[in-house]
Amino acid sequence: MTKAQIGLIGLGTMGAALALNIAEKGFPIAVWNRTTAVTRRFQAEAGELADRVIPTESLADLVAAIAPPRAIILMVPAGQPVDDQITALAPLLDPGDLLVDAGNANFHDTNRRTASDLPMRFLGMGVSGGEEGARHGPAIMGGGARADWDRIAPIMQAIAARAEDGTPCATWMGDAGAGHFVKTVHNGIEYADMQMIAEIYGLMRDGLGMDASGIGETFALWNEGPLKSYLIEISATVSRASDPLTGAPMLDVILDAAGQKGTGRWTAVEAQHLAAPIPVIEAAVMARNVSARLDERKAGEARFGPAPQPLELATAELEAALIAGKILCYAQGFAMIEAAGRNFGWQLDLPGIARVWRAGCIIRSAMLNDMAAALAENPARNLVLAPAFAERLQASIPALRQVVAQGVLHGHALPALASGLSWFDMMRTGRGTANMIQAQRDFFGAHGFDRLDGRDTHHGPWGH
Amino acid sequence: MTKAQIGLIGLGTMGAALALNIAEKGFPIAVWNRTTAVTRRFQAEAGELADRVIPTESLADLVAAIAPPRAIILMVPAGQPVDDQITALAPLLDPGDLLVDAGNANFHDTNRRTASDLPMRFLGMGVSGGEEGARHGPAIMGGGARADWDRIAPIMQAIAARAEDGTPCATWMGDAGAGHFVKTVHNGIEYADMQMIAEIYGLMRDGLGMDASGIGETFALWNEGPLKSYLIEISATVSRASDPLTGAPMLDVILDAAGQKGTGRWTAVEAQHLAAPIPVIEAAVMARNVSARLDERKAGEARFGPAPQPLELATAELEAALIAGKILCYAQGFAMIEAAGRNFGWQLDLPGIARVWRAGCIIRSAMLNDMAAALAENPARNLVLAPAFAERLQASIPALRQVVAQGVLHGHALPALASGLSWFDMMRTGRGTANMIQAQRDFFGAHGFDRLDGRDTHHGPWGH
Repeated sequence: MTKAQIGLIGLGTMGAALALNIAEKGFPIAVWNRTTAVTRRFQAEAGELADRVIPTESLADLVAAIAPPRAIILMVPAGQPVDDQITALAPLLDPGDLLVDAGNANFHDTNRRTASDLPMRFLGMGVSGGEEGARHGPAIMGGGARADWDRIAPIMQAIAARAEDGTPCATWMGDAGAGHFVKTVHNGIEYADMQMIAEIYGLMRDGLGMDASGIGETFALWNEGPLKSYLIEISATVSRASDPLTGAPMLDVILDAAGQKGTGRWTAVEAQHLAAPIPVIEAAVMARNVSARLDERKAGEARFGPAPQPLELATAELEAALIAGKILCYAQGFAMIEAAGRNFGWQLDLPGIARVWRAGCIIRSAMLNDMAAALAENPARNLVLAPAFAERLQASIPALRQVVAQGVLHGHALPALASGLSWFDMMRTGRGTANMIQAQRDFFGAHGFDRLDGRDTHHGPWGH
Repeated sequence: MTKAQIGLIGLGTMGAALALNIAEKGFPIAVWNRTTAVTRRFQAEAGELADRVIPTESLADLVAAIAPPRAIILMVPAGQPVDDQITALAPLLDPGDLLVDAGNANFHDTNRRTASDLPMRFLGMGVSGGEEGARHGPAIMGGGARADWDRIAPIMQAIAARAEDGTPCATWMGDAGAGHFVKTVHNGIEYADMQMIAEIYGLMRDGLGMDASGIGETFALWNEGPLKSYLIEISATVSRASDPLTGAPMLDVILDAAGQKGTGRWTAVEAQHLAAPIPVIEAAVMARNVSARLDERKAGEARFGPAPQPLELATAELEAALIAGKILCYAQGFAMIEAAGRNFGWQLDLPGIARVWRAGCIIRSAMLNDMAAALAENPARNLVLAPAFAERLQASIPALRQVVAQGVLHGHALPALASGLSWFDMMRTGRGTANMIQAQRDFFGAHGFDRLDGRDTHHGPWGH
């Protein structure tokens, strides 16, 4: 058998799917898993792709099976397992061999690994799209030395999803942890998109009294318009699904307590360090955390009476509100990426990032096409000020105001949509209210302030 | 001259005020500053307290001037300067001597210092109240070994503010960084209190067309009622002040761009790690960050038309909305402290913390008395469910709904008040909307979900 062109460690859901994708695109691949039985089962189930897969039962065999200079993808849980694999591989690899961490690493870990004196080359690569994406075309966000990325780019571009214009969604994002950073923000935006959909779902269910199937029809309809996206599409699907056990709509039997694996939190933490406001994502993380507090919520309902109350809104208003919310959320996310580029010294290509997200990943949507175009005009300008999106906002913000106001008055929690609107109203107010905060800070802490007229006096006449 | 009972390093604004406070309460104190001229000026300006102050011109002299076992307060900038002082003092101190870091340390640093093998005893102590408080009675939050705290407690209780019932606001919070942690949350709440006041100020100014002096009268009136607090009091003061240069109201000449020194950010970051929702504080940090983006805000106003628009609200509704917002904010803050206690293994005394905050610190308020009582009934119960506060919320939430809805409809940004309300509406909704999120997550990532009926099936019939 010829040598493999690439190796892969970790045949879990994502690793197995990625390995099959690579084999399918014609690249012989050597695979290894800590548990040999998993490797054997993978090989047995590889079907007609089995002849392009080289199963190995030790790391030494894996290394020996790959043509040098080698490239090996790590698809193991983030954190210590990655460091453990690096340590285990160190004595087996040549200095020119390349390790590619394709897991959901915290980008600070990727920065650390890149900066440490590893005995091999190292890339951090974000992969989005879930199992389905990994198997048939994920979005791939590469980070590390450009020359190392170029070595594996042909394989990554072959296995990646393709946008409608045929461009593969696999791009080098920047040095060190840039790829994992962009993947983290992607996940933060994913949290926010999902939360805004859940809020609109709640308004249809509790405010308009629609049943799950009617809600599913509505999402399906929206998926033909400006909201066309994977998440709206699957919202339609899950809304229409029935529970095999009871026949009830599937949504109606699922507990309303959301989990999280931490990338939304990472995004929120990093945004704090960057002083880059992403209130819609923060609200989405908050909502997941509160959703888990079932007992408190039940006690709250018992104490404060039934909520929420019926309301009157047209579904077209809900659609427009969601369009506005989505634009505001992405405007915040891209501004955060822009701030990160400046802070970390990465040449992050904002339109390029929008393009990579157009297909393969969870947040893929038609709107990302237009965002890529708007960001290409001027990446440093906030998306809400790009003419194409300013126009859409002007058309959709009135609906967002109506929807949020109705929610507020009738007790429907819309944390993400409301946060987006608050941010927008700050961003469109030339004279804000922080002068009060500056006066208070100067009063009690002599922190000083600037004056509107620019005069060089920085303290108030508080006389204490 | 007799030996000093305590020493202090760092005669900046806060350190000098604290040293005079200690001397005034009858404790001989030795002081040292990196720049000897500062020490000499301090001594020269100490007036009748000068005979209780021992100025020293070297660290060795400082140490020699204090009666063993020694206690020395560090009041130097947080971060590296603290570590530098520890290193410089190490060869001079005995193992039983005690260093007290009274600066605004990140509590993780205090944890690290406590856990490291320091050659002396070490406490981390949060001090709030600004210069005025430090001089005449701050709130003091001690952390570290209880026995070490007990050694300095008599001095700290003597210099601290006193609540109306005479209790000194100086308390041991818990081991290691517990004192600095509680101080950090204090500052986060301070951000939120100030932001909510600024939002209400904005409604009066831009929505009701009131002038600064009328706004000042209103705050002064509110300071006689349930909102009675230091921050409302100084809001009245700064609103009524005139600019000596132009004669205009002071508020009207101050630039609306707020700075931050990072403790609000620390609170937000820590809350993310604890999965403890504090959306009002997050909104306050967000608002400061957005306020600094003056050019973007002006461009936003130019593009999206003048904002905000006049509205009709009674000032009594604004007062009630602020009462509700304040309760919601503190409920979140205390819940975060409770979560920290569980996570970090600290026996944080929630009613004790409310009591320490009653006087001396920036967020001191009449309401903290009642909060202490409510938390004493059951510290693990969220404050919104404590009967006394549930009742106040029931009375004030309708006004908060009106105010936020009016703001939303007329373009006034109320990020903190709106976030508080969103959180409250989640906390009072027994059946939320996270079932949609769980369905989506299971669809694309096979994350699994629980069912309302508890049956042991954790995936949907998505058939893909």
